[in-house]
Amino acid sequence: MEFFMNISGSLLINGQEELTTNEAIFATNPTTGNRIDIAFHTADENHVNAAAESAWNIFDDFRALPSSRRSEFLKSIANEILALGDTLINKAVEESGLPKGRIEGERMRTVNQLNLFANNIETESWRTTIIDSALPERTPPRSDLRHQKIALGPVAVFGASNFPLAFSVAGGDTASALAAGCPVIVKAHSAHPGTSWLVGKAIQKAAELTGMPPGVFSLLYGEGNTIGTQLVQHPLIKAVGFTGSRSGGLALLNIANARVEPIPVYAEMSSINPVFAYENTLTENAVSIAQGFAASLTMGAGQFCTNPGVLCYKDSPSSRAFIEKLTPIIAQSAAQTMLTPSIKNAYDNSVSDFTKITGMTLISQGSEANGPNQCQASIFQTTGDRFINNRFMQNEVFGACCVLVSCSSEAQFLEVAESLEGQLTCTVLCNEQDHNQVRPLIPVLERKAGRLVYNGYPTGVEVCNAMVHGGPFPATSNSMTTSVGSNAIERFLRPVCYQDFPNNLLPN
Amino acid sequence: MEFFMNISGSLLINGQEELTTNEAIFATNPTTGNRIDIAFHTADENHVNAAAESAWNIFDDFRALPSSRRSEFLKSIANEILALGDTLINKAVEESGLPKGRIEGERMRTVNQLNLFANNIETESWRTTIIDSALPERTPPRSDLRHQKIALGPVAVFGASNFPLAFSVAGGDTASALAAGCPVIVKAHSAHPGTSWLVGKAIQKAAELTGMPPGVFSLLYGEGNTIGTQLVQHPLIKAVGFTGSRSGGLALLNIANARVEPIPVYAEMSSINPVFAYENTLTENAVSIAQGFAASLTMGAGQFCTNPGVLCYKDSPSSRAFIEKLTPIIAQSAAQTMLTPSIKNAYDNSVSDFTKITGMTLISQGSEANGPNQCQASIFQTTGDRFINNRFMQNEVFGACCVLVSCSSEAQFLEVAESLEGQLTCTVLCNEQDHNQVRPLIPVLERKAGRLVYNGYPTGVEVCNAMVHGGPFPATSNSMTTSVGSNAIERFLRPVCYQDFPNNLLPN
Repeated sequence: MEFFMNISGSLLINGQEELTTNEAIFATNPTTGNRIDIAFHTADENHVNAAAESAWNIFDDFRALPSSRRSEFLKSIANEILALGDTLINKAVEESGLPKGRIEGERMRTVNQLNLFANNIETESWRTTIIDSALPERTPPRSDLRHQKIALGPVAVFGASNFPLAFSVAGGDTASALAAGCPVIVKAHSAHPGTSWLVGKAIQKAAELTGMPPGVFSLLYGEGNTIGTQLVQHPLIKAVGFTGSRSGGLALLNIANARVEPIPVYAEMSSINPVFAYENTLTENAVSIAQGFAASLTMGAGQFCTNPGVLCYKDSPSSRAFIEKLTPIIAQSAAQTMLTPSIKNAYDNSVSDFTKITGMTLISQGSEANGPNQCQASIFQTTGDRFINNRFMQNEVFGACCVLVSCSSEAQFLEVAESLEGQLTCTVLCNEQDHNQVRPLIPVLERKAGRLVYNGYPTGVEVCNAMVHGGPFPATSNSMTTSVGSNAIERFLRPVCYQDFPNNLLPN
Repeated sequence: MEFFMNISGSLLINGQEELTTNEAIFATNPTTGNRIDIAFHTADENHVNAAAESAWNIFDDFRALPSSRRSEFLKSIANEILALGDTLINKAVEESGLPKGRIEGERMRTVNQLNLFANNIETESWRTTIIDSALPERTPPRSDLRHQKIALGPVAVFGASNFPLAFSVAGGDTASALAAGCPVIVKAHSAHPGTSWLVGKAIQKAAELTGMPPGVFSLLYGEGNTIGTQLVQHPLIKAVGFTGSRSGGLALLNIANARVEPIPVYAEMSSINPVFAYENTLTENAVSIAQGFAASLTMGAGQFCTNPGVLCYKDSPSSRAFIEKLTPIIAQSAAQTMLTPSIKNAYDNSVSDFTKITGMTLISQGSEANGPNQCQASIFQTTGDRFINNRFMQNEVFGACCVLVSCSSEAQFLEVAESLEGQLTCTVLCNEQDHNQVRPLIPVLERKAGRLVYNGYPTGVEVCNAMVHGGPFPATSNSMTTSVGSNAIERFLRPVCYQDFPNNLLPN
């Protein structure tokens, strides 16, 4: 354990710690606003090349390993993360400003995710084996044809700011790529370099313990628009996993599309996760919905991709009574520390931009900040007509900000829904008596989102087989995939058909 | 039947025949070189809009139909194509210059393909239903989560020149898109507008007979860089299927990527389908390999995406003896009519370009042309060293042209393979005694191609469950998919997760 207390701040490349003379980066403790005095060494193109080449050189060996070996590796990563104990928890709290309980929960999620993929690949179902046996008597005869999936190649993973463990160095992208047989190079998020280093060392140690080739994992620090670009442009990188902003995701997508050999980018980007609340349930359950909605909106300072940024309802005495329940809950909500100073600034600017839009009214704000980087929850109100006709009202605000959309009728919910860009989630809140109103909305929401929630809230993404954490553009860059749950592995596999191959030449 | 003899040359939009005043296009009979005097009406942006809007308007209804209804529709299309009898066969022969037997075979393939998707969707496996039941006792409780796939949206299909039936109006792209629940708009290939019209009318008739909404299918004539571009740019089009040249596919890909909402393009583009022939089999089976290879190379004037354009072997007495068997077969091969004058010109230019490359030697050519648009099969020879270092030698020549690559050793096969771009297929010809030499090549070929063939030839793509007709860029624009076989439907589906939905709001 002692070893890990001493964070060297090195790059982690091909099983080694690499120190550089490039300008270092430092984390900020968002709770105090102070710089954390550990220098993290940043990469240059030579390090990108070294990482990519070490990944490429072992790619065929790594993907050819029996699934049970990669499974051991993933389980060992989970164990090594747990073995970091409070060293990791305290570092993540220090760098993210998130409460300890939240980080502990996220660690469990990260560990469960690694174990889910570890267990899933042991069943070999990831190979999607399909056999069409030879039909020698047919005219013309049919060959023996065997379909099986193989790993795509080395994957570049960009850690997210808001989940320093579960969507970062050993998060879902890394776990699913390694499970698929793809070596991984992580570009650490600059907001939590120490957390990234600890987890990176845990992966290095797990690789050593389970006899993996060291090129299977590297961790780089640096700017997205320099080493991030170089990584995505590198000819030996064959796919990209990203969770972050729309501008960041689109930048990587454009770089990948401009390559001589374009590669898939799985970017999870932007979603305002609309909620449609129907009359009968608002009448009957105003208090519980106000509480549930406010909790979903303000949890983690609203810094979730699935944060509910829009709430639609029909203007009526019931909905007005509901709003009267909601606004004081928001007004009493505590200010919360955001992940980074720049996220806090962006939040304030976005809220300020909303106040300038004609027809957007700020109707409630949470408690004022009493420390650095704290945000006030904010709810705005507008009408369905205005919302439909003003694209700016659909801008994602990263944080606890929501637009209440007061519609002229529940039929207008369909127009609001049609006006939306692609989403990770859409939610309906309703009673049985509302179902006839709800039914025509469902096909629209299906076209708009990867997950539809009934009488729940969009935050809280279960890691399981049926999960879809994805959705039409711009929620993600590839609506046919998910970045959470078992099917995330599909992003890093491609099919190969073997025609008339003898057993002794077929892969394991 | 009489009705169909009279090809009006109209566009087919939303169940109607649409005549236009735009400049018409005419087909050429490649066998005679003469224009065929049926004017085909070309579309402008209004027709693109009308087709896209009619598709969009019925999209939710069409995708919500029970699978059995779409299955009936597909089977009815197959029946209506067969009912066209010799009218269709003769027209396709006239427009393509392909022999009647080949067109009859292709019709059967087209019909089988439609029936394959029809039968497959009846099993409902296309939905990929995954259910994670609620775990109310867990802390925190787990919701009921149901994963199911839905159709992507209206699909634009670009017919290929070389399969006027199987990769055209009612080809694999159309069949799989309709099976998935996606309306289809076909941009007809200008080389076979009459064939396209007859098949388009068969689809319209089948839609009518099976009670499909007429917007489910439209057929447009016009230039790729005008109406083709407009189609791919249209906001209501959600995916593109294309089979054709690399330049054509890349153009569509760039247009799709530049949209406000980028959409997937499934372009099957360019492949030289290398064959690696090992020493022992060349020694033992020189004659049969020479015959088999020449047959695969010259079949259909070499106008197949899976045509073998490269043959590698180790320079040795055995391989020299083999070449001596191969060259006279090529020299005696009959000249064959190519699909269009422009394809014939491109072939001649490509062969001429090859003759200008230092170190490429034309070692055999087929019989001289004795009619319009006929091509001579051509085989060139070079060395492994030269091939590895000269990208131009990897250019796809559409037609019966092959580069024989004489390697210094079988170990050099690995370098040749590593130097290749992505391919649809790679083939090994070998004996059991060659297996130890072959084994290290397999992982390289897996990374390079969608289908690996053992002791066979790449032409002839079986329509079945295990088929992969795809491969890394530039063979296709998306290596994770296939355009032939059951899995082709996956291209037009995306997953949606329903959280805690009651049965009466879940889709069928």
